[in-house]
Amino acid sequence: MNSPLNKELVDAICIANGLRNAKELGNTTIRQLVSVVSDIERATGERYVRMEMGVPGLEPSKIGIEAEQRAIQTGIAAKYPAIMGIDELKREASRFIKAFINIDVPDKCIVPTVGSMQGAFTALLACKQMRDDRDTILFLDPGFPVQKQQCQVMEIPYLSFDVADYRDEKLGPKIEEYLRSGKVAAMLFSNPNNPSWMCLNERELRTIGELATKYDVVVIEDLAYLNMDFREDRSVPFQPPFQPTVARYTDNYVQLLSASKIFSYAGQRGAIIAISEGLFEREFDGFERRYGNGHFGRSLIHKILYCLSAGVTHTVQYAMTAMFKAASDGEFNYIESVKEYGRRAQRVKEIMLRNGFHIVYDKDCDQEVGDGFFFTFGYKDMTGEMLINKLIYYGISAIPLGGTGSAREGLRGCTSSISEVQYDELDKRLKLFSRDY
Amino acid sequence: MNSPLNKELVDAICIANGLRNAKELGNTTIRQLVSVVSDIERATGERYVRMEMGVPGLEPSKIGIEAEQRAIQTGIAAKYPAIMGIDELKREASRFIKAFINIDVPDKCIVPTVGSMQGAFTALLACKQMRDDRDTILFLDPGFPVQKQQCQVMEIPYLSFDVADYRDEKLGPKIEEYLRSGKVAAMLFSNPNNPSWMCLNERELRTIGELATKYDVVVIEDLAYLNMDFREDRSVPFQPPFQPTVARYTDNYVQLLSASKIFSYAGQRGAIIAISEGLFEREFDGFERRYGNGHFGRSLIHKILYCLSAGVTHTVQYAMTAMFKAASDGEFNYIESVKEYGRRAQRVKEIMLRNGFHIVYDKDCDQEVGDGFFFTFGYKDMTGEMLINKLIYYGISAIPLGGTGSAREGLRGCTSSISEVQYDELDKRLKLFSRDY
Repeated sequence: MNSPLNKELVDAICIANGLRNAKELGNTTIRQLVSVVSDIERATGERYVRMEMGVPGLEPSKIGIEAEQRAIQTGIAAKYPAIMGIDELKREASRFIKAFINIDVPDKCIVPTVGSMQGAFTALLACKQMRDDRDTILFLDPGFPVQKQQCQVMEIPYLSFDVADYRDEKLGPKIEEYLRSGKVAAMLFSNPNNPSWMCLNERELRTIGELATKYDVVVIEDLAYLNMDFREDRSVPFQPPFQPTVARYTDNYVQLLSASKIFSYAGQRGAIIAISEGLFEREFDGFERRYGNGHFGRSLIHKILYCLSAGVTHTVQYAMTAMFKAASDGEFNYIESVKEYGRRAQRVKEIMLRNGFHIVYDKDCDQEVGDGFFFTFGYKDMTGEMLINKLIYYGISAIPLGGTGSAREGLRGCTSSISEVQYDELDKRLKLFSRDY
Repeated sequence: MNSPLNKELVDAICIANGLRNAKELGNTTIRQLVSVVSDIERATGERYVRMEMGVPGLEPSKIGIEAEQRAIQTGIAAKYPAIMGIDELKREASRFIKAFINIDVPDKCIVPTVGSMQGAFTALLACKQMRDDRDTILFLDPGFPVQKQQCQVMEIPYLSFDVADYRDEKLGPKIEEYLRSGKVAAMLFSNPNNPSWMCLNERELRTIGELATKYDVVVIEDLAYLNMDFREDRSVPFQPPFQPTVARYTDNYVQLLSASKIFSYAGQRGAIIAISEGLFEREFDGFERRYGNGHFGRSLIHKILYCLSAGVTHTVQYAMTAMFKAASDGEFNYIESVKEYGRRAQRVKEIMLRNGFHIVYDKDCDQEVGDGFFFTFGYKDMTGEMLINKLIYYGISAIPLGGTGSAREGLRGCTSSISEVQYDELDKRLKLFSRDY
């Protein structure tokens, strides 16, 4: 590719995908963007540097696959999985959390979900319903747009602000502005952060935890990228350093842990919810009124989660059990497997910077932001929309930060689908782009 | 077991399970009843005739298992399943529907769900949200209690009546009483019916379909027990007789088809939603207002279903594909496999009648109700609650009809967990019971 792609062709493909023209790519859904890029690849024979999808780019864990193959031979495909989850999974998940986060969550407070998508849906709805006098979710943005879509589907009010401008000692006062109203039922964030890859540190998590206790607000901590902050080595089970967590500082927490990214197991839709024992056992008036029983754990599991899917695919529960166990036993270094994303991010970011691009979320408090699954990039003073509308002609795809609640302009890139052989091509295309703009 | 079980022991186990005494068994959940019975079995060494759980009692389909084993070797465990479902599944599901229901549903109108539990949740929520001026669900009862729990969780108003008293020409006027208000968004029923095993016939389905069109109400048809009315042989693909369906009489339908019972595949949580093309393509103001796009199919799939679990376990989609295909190809007679339930029902009902019990829902219009997965039974003028509170001491378990929206008193029995060797024991226990009462 020595020149930009044919404008008419790209526009025609956008139109065939339900857009008016390529300019609309900037505020479409990821799914539509994926579809447009795939169609352009087919039509032109050119391979894009695809950074729009947040999907695993590695082989799935063999340990999980083998466990599923063994499990399915035992006839369990016929048997409804217990809604609480199989005992072994609850036990190994609790041990894994101890090994890599260093907190204690009893088996009974852990329940499997159909991906953390179902985990977030369940947790958000439970937090909305548990009290009659507060129903609002506060998102510490930028974040995963579909969690806001979940609120929209469930008619849950939400607020949000971009955390990047309120790091360290600025964080507490900013959060308190929102909590003071008394309307906030829960706060949600992902750590490491999707899309910016910023990582809240223990000081900030202490602040969040203490405010959660003070205002009696639940913290939903999305750990989709658990321990994928590669700036320190957290790969040895039961040894520090551990994943930073709000759970050390409040008893009002719900953690979402998914096998999708850490074990490259997204296809099988396995995750767990871990709830602090204090919260699990608490009684709430909203649950009492709705379900005749105010117990948080029982309401979340038997009333809400049960009626979403009647449990999690039986064999997948065995896969998760085996992967958690092997990681805790020190036999499966899951962090080493996913470090590849960090290496790719480093290379891609270096190529970007060399060609006049900048990293949008470049700082993590006083450090450089780490290299991992996602990174953010911009070009001169272009908005995210403008940038994707132009890059699309240069064989490069990524998604605008606009949909993530970001206060900054630019794109989110995911390193998972980039292969070694594409670095030179990326450099060439970005050179072409920077020559033109 | 020559005498009833020890009352103190049974009461103690009930109390240990969170009940005040055995009398509360009559209005507890199925799950709690299951737990009590399992504990009594452990404590006494006596094996119950367990009829409380609606779970498959046969081996899972080998075709499904082999397909999953093949699929998981291809690395798809790492890849997010497309939210629309894999192409092969959509194609084979469409063909299966043609082969065994004789209706035409295009591939694009079919989407996999995590069991029909997720299918019903999605369909109910879509029907509530699609129009701003109607939000109520009408259940043609008796029915599956968890679908009402779904309404409770989503705050969807619902109405219901017991269909048994309004069969044939009485059905239309009764339904119209409810539809005339203009508040009903959708009607839901299962056919064959859980728990009564009554089967709505083509005449009644025509009535329902015509009213659905007249009042513009969606019909959600739960086909969990597809073609398990064994009074006629519907086992030959693409040959009549077919499963009766409302889809022949209205364009306002959504069908729920699950692999759990027909393929004995409940553990893997695989099902599909099939939507009539007319409904799929329609635009609704409620969706337009909420999601900026009024399209029924896109709203249901990309807005609601997507945010519930981000798709269905990848390997399970291949299992469903293979089972649907083998059935349509005439290579897998799934109806022959599940006919065992009918044989068991016949034996158990005969033993019940011989010991002074009666069948609660005994008629299906002018026919005897068929023998299948579920049946209903009562004793003299005892309420369902009274009956289970007494039978529990005789080593027999089943669930009261109260929770199903039934207007009649008695219990639901499921034939799936009864084995050949238990018939004599059942006879002995019922004799003991009828001697005592």
